[in-house]
Amino acid sequence: MPRYKITIEYDGTPFVGWQAQDNGPSVQAALERALLAFSAEAARVNGAGRTDAGVHALGQVAHFDLDKEWPCETVRDALNAHLRPDPVAVLDCERVAADFDARFSATRRTYLYRIVDRRTPLALDRQRAWQVPRRLDTRTMNVAAKALLGNHDFTTFRSAQCQAKSPQKTLDRLDVKREKSIIHIEAVARSFLHNQVRSMVGALKLVGEGKWQVGDVERALKARDRAACAPVAPAHGLYLERVDY
Amino acid sequence: MPRYKITIEYDGTPFVGWQAQDNGPSVQAALERALLAFSAEAARVNGAGRTDAGVHALGQVAHFDLDKEWPCETVRDALNAHLRPDPVAVLDCERVAADFDARFSATRRTYLYRIVDRRTPLALDRQRAWQVPRRLDTRTMNVAAKALLGNHDFTTFRSAQCQAKSPQKTLDRLDVKREKSIIHIEAVARSFLHNQVRSMVGALKLVGEGKWQVGDVERALKARDRAACAPVAPAHGLYLERVDY
Repeated sequence: MPRYKITIEYDGTPFVGWQAQDNGPSVQAALERALLAFSAEAARVNGAGRTDAGVHALGQVAHFDLDKEWPCETVRDALNAHLRPDPVAVLDCERVAADFDARFSATRRTYLYRIVDRRTPLALDRQRAWQVPRRLDTRTMNVAAKALLGNHDFTTFRSAQCQAKSPQKTLDRLDVKREKSIIHIEAVARSFLHNQVRSMVGALKLVGEGKWQVGDVERALKARDRAACAPVAPAHGLYLERVDY
Repeated sequence: MPRYKITIEYDGTPFVGWQAQDNGPSVQAALERALLAFSAEAARVNGAGRTDAGVHALGQVAHFDLDKEWPCETVRDALNAHLRPDPVAVLDCERVAADFDARFSATRRTYLYRIVDRRTPLALDRQRAWQVPRRLDTRTMNVAAKALLGNHDFTTFRSAQCQAKSPQKTLDRLDVKREKSIIHIEAVARSFLHNQVRSMVGALKLVGEGKWQVGDVERALKARDRAACAPVAPAHGLYLERVDY
């Protein structure tokens, strides 16, 4: 039974999230519907990460099995044809070994968070970035980010709904960079806790505003207490950028 | 009677264009409605350029007169408050002299055109860029662009609906650059004919595909004939980037 790996881009705005749920349209259900329409097979599409409602993806990865063998280009193009008009695009498709698992085989996940720090509302980037009305000090944010690198108990930065067995994670990279009028925060780890990136961004935003010092981020981490967390950054600034294997 | 100059960003997708029309919502009408709601004055908002349906703006400029004097920050913030939920944002407001005219005082207009050349559809940039399914040769496109610089009769690149008195215009800059996965085409002139940028981009796209040579662009220009024009590029890739005075 051939297994296929696909790389997917989506605009998370109209979706309740990656995962198929009863309360509204999901990216997973859109893909499964397109797969059924094209192949007449009701296959489960297994994603590398369950993005929340409103979270976008530049390079989500998923796998599925089909009875039939298809050229990968056919799978990609047929899925895209059947996905219309949903804002979901299959960028790539390849055959993988039967033991490849989009979620469990992943060795590295990269998330991007976009902030626009200006007083006026966003017109073009409205559902694409977090608008923060005052100018943020990105240099100090970047220094504070480094306090979170390494292996830690990230309980402070973990959603109450998180289902991970352990709050212990290794954060490999957390960079804050200003690119023209946009602030990019890039986070890299083998895996993240639920809401971890948005919780860390919430803390860095307070540092950028001067409300928190670098030491406050360190203290929040050491507290291992959800109550020590800054307000969580909104979903619509977050992008699952890529997944490596 | 104080005159105000505003700089505006908008997502052109839900609008019939800049200009107030009977057939649907326009950016101009949205601004005039917000102005009335805030100031109780029914003022005309005069734009620097009339963008078509679907065309975006990063820095459209407009002026209007109000009987009352307001602090510029108040005008900006009040307009933004009343513009919700329309995807229009007033980035800046300043007082200008009574003889300032957003359209006629402009000395330079900069337009940006965005192309993504990939086979798969766009999810995040769907109404924000022109998706061209084959890889474009941007170097040759940039060479061909230079053939259009200077003072010419641009009849070939002019819409049949264009109301300009003369087809003679001076194109100061036309640059084609690849930035990661996006192709940026930037066009600068004192003023443009109706559909001129989209018509030029249509020709450059044929060059990028290898269907036209650089000489074909020169011949099209010299023909001074609308029939010699390549298919016009779609509106949703175009941005009025800035207007200088």
